[in-house]
Amino acid sequence: MRDVVEIGMGKTAQRGYHLDDIAIVPSRRTRDFDDVSTAWQLDAYQFKIPCVAHPSDAIMSPTSAAALGQLGGLGTLNVEGLWCRYEDPTKLLESLAALDDDGRTATRRLQDVYAEPIKPELIAERVRSIRDSGVTVAVRVSPQHTLTLAPVILDAGVDILIIQGTIVSAEHVSTIDEPLNLKEFIADLDLPVIAGGCTDYKTALHLMRTGAAGVIVGVGADAWSTTDMVLGIRVPMATAIADAAAARRDYLDETGGRYVHLIADGDVNTSGDIAKALGCGADAVMLGEPLSRCEEAPASGAWWHSAASHPKLPRGSFGMADSALGPLEQVLFGPSDDADGSLNLFGGLRRAMAKCGYRDVKEFQKVGLVLDR
Amino acid sequence: MRDVVEIGMGKTAQRGYHLDDIAIVPSRRTRDFDDVSTAWQLDAYQFKIPCVAHPSDAIMSPTSAAALGQLGGLGTLNVEGLWCRYEDPTKLLESLAALDDDGRTATRRLQDVYAEPIKPELIAERVRSIRDSGVTVAVRVSPQHTLTLAPVILDAGVDILIIQGTIVSAEHVSTIDEPLNLKEFIADLDLPVIAGGCTDYKTALHLMRTGAAGVIVGVGADAWSTTDMVLGIRVPMATAIADAAAARRDYLDETGGRYVHLIADGDVNTSGDIAKALGCGADAVMLGEPLSRCEEAPASGAWWHSAASHPKLPRGSFGMADSALGPLEQVLFGPSDDADGSLNLFGGLRRAMAKCGYRDVKEFQKVGLVLDR
Amino acid sequence: MRDVVEIGMGKTAQRGYHLDDIAIVPSRRTRDFDDVSTAWQLDAYQFKIPCVAHPSDAIMSPTSAAALGQLGGLGTLNVEGLWCRYEDPTKLLESLAALDDDGRTATRRLQDVYAEPIKPELIAERVRSIRDSGVTVAVRVSPQHTLTLAPVILDAGVDILIIQGTIVSAEHVSTIDEPLNLKEFIADLDLPVIAGGCTDYKTALHLMRTGAAGVIVGVGADAWSTTDMVLGIRVPMATAIADAAAARRDYLDETGGRYVHLIADGDVNTSGDIAKALGCGADAVMLGEPLSRCEEAPASGAWWHSAASHPKLPRGSFGMADSALGPLEQVLFGPSDDADGSLNLFGGLRRAMAKCGYRDVKEFQKVGLVLDR
Amino acid sequence: MRDVVEIGMGKTAQRGYHLDDIAIVPSRRTRDFDDVSTAWQLDAYQFKIPCVAHPSDAIMSPTSAAALGQLGGLGTLNVEGLWCRYEDPTKLLESLAALDDDGRTATRRLQDVYAEPIKPELIAERVRSIRDSGVTVAVRVSPQHTLTLAPVILDAGVDILIIQGTIVSAEHVSTIDEPLNLKEFIADLDLPVIAGGCTDYKTALHLMRTGAAGVIVGVGADAWSTTDMVLGIRVPMATAIADAAAARRDYLDETGGRYVHLIADGDVNTSGDIAKALGCGADAVMLGEPLSRCEEAPASGAWWHSAASHPKLPRGSFGMADSALGPLEQVLFGPSDDADGSLNLFGGLRRAMAKCGYRDVKEFQKVGLVLDR
Repeated sequence: MRDVVEIGMGKTAQRGYHLDDIAIVPSRRTRDFDDVSTAWQLDAYQFKIPCVAHPSDAIMSPTSAAALGQLGGLGTLNVEGLWCRYEDPTKLLESLAALDDDGRTATRRLQDVYAEPIKPELIAERVRSIRDSGVTVAVRVSPQHTLTLAPVILDAGVDILIIQGTIVSAEHVSTIDEPLNLKEFIADLDLPVIAGGCTDYKTALHLMRTGAAGVIVGVGADAWSTTDMVLGIRVPMATAIADAAAARRDYLDETGGRYVHLIADGDVNTSGDIAKALGCGADAVMLGEPLSRCEEAPASGAWWHSAASHPKLPRGSFGMADSALGPLEQVLFGPSDDADGSLNLFGGLRRAMAKCGYRDVKEFQKVGLVLDR
Repeated sequence: MRDVVEIGMGKTAQRGYHLDDIAIVPSRRTRDFDDVSTAWQLDAYQFKIPCVAHPSDAIMSPTSAAALGQLGGLGTLNVEGLWCRYEDPTKLLESLAALDDDGRTATRRLQDVYAEPIKPELIAERVRSIRDSGVTVAVRVSPQHTLTLAPVILDAGVDILIIQGTIVSAEHVSTIDEPLNLKEFIADLDLPVIAGGCTDYKTALHLMRTGAAGVIVGVGADAWSTTDMVLGIRVPMATAIADAAAARRDYLDETGGRYVHLIADGDVNTSGDIAKALGCGADAVMLGEPLSRCEEAPASGAWWHSAASHPKLPRGSFGMADSALGPLEQVLFGPSDDADGSLNLFGGLRRAMAKCGYRDVKEFQKVGLVLDR
Repeated sequence: MRDVVEIGMGKTAQRGYHLDDIAIVPSRRTRDFDDVSTAWQLDAYQFKIPCVAHPSDAIMSPTSAAALGQLGGLGTLNVEGLWCRYEDPTKLLESLAALDDDGRTATRRLQDVYAEPIKPELIAERVRSIRDSGVTVAVRVSPQHTLTLAPVILDAGVDILIIQGTIVSAEHVSTIDEPLNLKEFIADLDLPVIAGGCTDYKTALHLMRTGAAGVIVGVGADAWSTTDMVLGIRVPMATAIADAAAARRDYLDETGGRYVHLIADGDVNTSGDIAKALGCGADAVMLGEPLSRCEEAPASGAWWHSAASHPKLPRGSFGMADSALGPLEQVLFGPSDDADGSLNLFGGLRRAMAKCGYRDVKEFQKVGLVLDR
Repeated sequence: MRDVVEIGMGKTAQRGYHLDDIAIVPSRRTRDFDDVSTAWQLDAYQFKIPCVAHPSDAIMSPTSAAALGQLGGLGTLNVEGLWCRYEDPTKLLESLAALDDDGRTATRRLQDVYAEPIKPELIAERVRSIRDSGVTVAVRVSPQHTLTLAPVILDAGVDILIIQGTIVSAEHVSTIDEPLNLKEFIADLDLPVIAGGCTDYKTALHLMRTGAAGVIVGVGADAWSTTDMVLGIRVPMATAIADAAAARRDYLDETGGRYVHLIADGDVNTSGDIAKALGCGADAVMLGEPLSRCEEAPASGAWWHSAASHPKLPRGSFGMADSALGPLEQVLFGPSDDADGSLNLFGGLRRAMAKCGYRDVKEFQKVGLVLDR
């Protein structure tokens, strides 16, 4: 059973597990690859694959968000990103792609670039551009700017709103500003909201109670993230997802049937990681750096988190541009000619599901796991 | 006692252990090296050493399969490999041996080479060639191609049939093709079948119930395997072997005496690993890369898994050719002039058994183990 | 619950945890950064940040001690350091900063430099110099030299006395010299004493009973420390801090209200580590190497422990000078343009507290922890 | 409590701990360095330090054995080593010191050099040479050669006989030769015998019952050892020592007072490791590679195990010669100018004992331990 460890007299810690600590255990039966479905549906929106893009400018422009949507995933745009700060950020993205530093020079460059104010008029333009492609439109805003930017965003006509910060709680306390009351805010909207990240059962449950359609689990940590070093926060994703899945079950029970989707954001680097995140109970994964390796990536393979450009406390290293592995379609669906799980991400998921005998993602959440580290 | 860990609320994982996590504990007594036997017998076939070759073209040609048989092990040939696709694959093997890339170039080359169709007429020829050398003949076929290729294989007159895929279950579900019913298939044969890989107690037991004479435990993972990254499947071999050994005991009881042999396929790199795999309960080991280091290896030291050439989802890196350690006989029986456990593989096993005081492999399955990682 | 492990028959060991083994878990709520306080108070002395400098000559001179005090921390001076051995150690510090060796040459150089006798008259001069800057004056003396140097130190008029050795106990046994009786010594003083390091509950409690106002937990271990290799002593700081916090609670109860402060000395390298140390129960942290990276550092970025210059048994490697990250103020309060937690140390702490919804350091000691390694 | 882990259904393993997994915990009190004794006594022989040299030709010649004895330790000579195979092995040792390979070339060279037959007449000469220096004379013989070489060894007049193989049991089974009956053999001698290595409680107890004065715990594993890779045997030394100490207590009880000394052979690289080995219950340590780093080392810093020259199954890498750290006296007693625990080995032990408040080695076996890995 789960450990509550006494790390010192009277001070306890829950033991948590990372996706790397676990693996999937095939058993029961096997199934034909072609009999397996990876489909996902959030509210009225249907997706061929359970894939949400991380709203980082490194991977999501209006163009690439549309491309991901057309291939069956959910593209996203950060309304606090470069596309809503600059009329044409193309040159800036090129200059970031050309950076040959992954240290302070790069961080300062990111800070400079993001110091430009957000231009509300650009938000409408970007949203329109994505919608014109015919895909589901999702934009991300931080909790701090939600109240200010919501009118513009809603007027622009998005389908899904993502309210995302490193840590988002249902109850933000401030003696200075009027804080965002998520529950009231969501009640007034008639579009689905995805909110997070969160890292534990209680916060996940409280976020569900705000009326969110989806909850982001995790803080987007990957090899470039430095949240651990800067804030002391490190999220064992297998545990965080499974705990949030327990919150989903309890909330389903308390509401008599409201199913809130869990989107795993962190430590998902390969097709094997996608399978493990879903096997722990996630409904979908949020992909960041893995999508930076496709030809359509706006920053030509460079990678950074939103938090990497924080003006006073950046929390993420800059990943220098690398050559693309292939077009987005190949990254998602293969064929792969790279054996390390970076190509054919959702073909790999599907084959893992087939080897375990499952038909769909919801069933696959029950797959057996082994803990071996 | 064994842990079932709650990795998150309501989601459990079995804790599993790798061969690297454990070691052998000598105790009781010691025994003379010359009083120890490593003999193994499967059905009517006797072997001097409990050694089955991994059916990879990198190590097994008709010639090297015969050589292994003559030295007391069980050579194998993959009927879906190069020797059954090309009249004379020698030049191709040479070109693979000359590859100086272990990334996408190599993977693409493997994919190209294996795109050539299987030629049933070659199967008969290859089998004949091995049989002419007077050794036990074993060939490997994948579950997908078993029904199609079985007639040709059986006509050719093999002694042992190996039905092997990454994961093989006793119940494959398909709405598209007529799936292979292993139990019926084996019942109709009058030669012993080895089937696998499998990774847990239940699948092992079900495979035993199909009538298989041997069950392969593991997915052949080694340093070149990427099953973990691509599929999220990683097999703690010490646990997988011990669990399959429990299935063997239970099946022995339920059948009143049918003993099914366990062949450990994965994480067996050195003579010490062979000793540990047997100490966990295996009857024999399946060796892949360790045999690529002998002078007789058809690809001159290069190494790849069968799955490394998959056309859409390759799962294995290409190991570039390295100079041989010595002739196969020296690799198996020494003398060794290399201290790292790669030479004198079965002399090392025998000495480990002697230091623990055991006489034969079956007794040695009871050796004491320590868990230290 | 906490493990007492039987490492062999009849021999037990307590299981301990390092700061790296744990992380902070945000939950409950979030709070505005500007509503969070990092203030600390020891006896009558108030500090803006819970930061005590390690009394190493590499970071603390009379000038830099004053600078840290002016910025809200507690500067310290080692009365057994270079500033009390040499009239003007500036040239020596420059020569140490210029050393391009981190091995035996550097160790010998440190041994040579510290072979010079302590000059009591310099102690008074250094103390005066710090006091003239208007900050709280704290000096460090080893237990061995406390009786000899105390008169000079007290005459010089310090505010806080730090009695610090690798390991300090409340009961030192000697058949040779009259040992320091800490309890009697402190009773005779009318200034607060900080004593340590210690590593376990019992020693911490006994040090509290000597009347110390603060107890140092840990032996100052960091990447340059070699106490483990030389003495076999390695302190899992999360456990050591939590155990000492239990001693603090028990002593509070037995005295009806005497609160002894815990200063964590070891494994605190980043802002995230500061948050974790306080989350385990520390009241303040002792910073060494992290402060060597500011422009004001007397040895221009070189770093060594006090124990690194021991004449017969040095226990610490010499860290060669590196370029500064920025002025002390930036190291403590940002803005940061380095994502790895080395800059804006206390802004990072404050943000971690805000993300967890806590108002002050005392509250934050109750933050939730996860154990994930 | 100690874990017996079920690694798979019905297959258990004892959990074991390495010296690296544990550390010493100072508590209670501290003590003056000069009040601490590291003395050791085996039978009638007294030693200033609990130090036995590993009987490897790399460190022990008649000259260096005498030097270690004069400094207070126990030198040893391998009667199956080069000094008893060659009239003058000096040139050979020089050629080994000059080897610039640590792979097969080195192993073959060792095999060649040790292929020369043992010359009984040299044994007497070497023993005389050591005895002439006035120190306690100890020689090592393997169990296989004990019956043959014993007459010569005993005639030569040694003080202590060491019967040492990788694994020595009280009951060796052979259908080929008359095996050595240790109990009868020892009963017939009137000099103390040290026997081993062994790795568990039962074997240790049985070795004690043979009448041995000392038992070697461990198989001498260090960074150059490959017993793990070759034989699958890896000894968690903290557990092995503690278990053997339990055997010592039980044997003390069953004999009404016969105290058998434990000599820890493996994973002891630094002064900190010596402290930990004694803290687990050892009476002395057997030092190999650490002594190769003194100026007197016969192979000028090169290092190899006895088993590294095995003609068919070598189990140990060759460590190329490195420059000396200092004279043997400095390695043992300092002063040190190297912070990593390689110099002043027994000064470091003594200081660790002082920081924990213990007076002698026997008391120090009760020191508190923490498990942190």
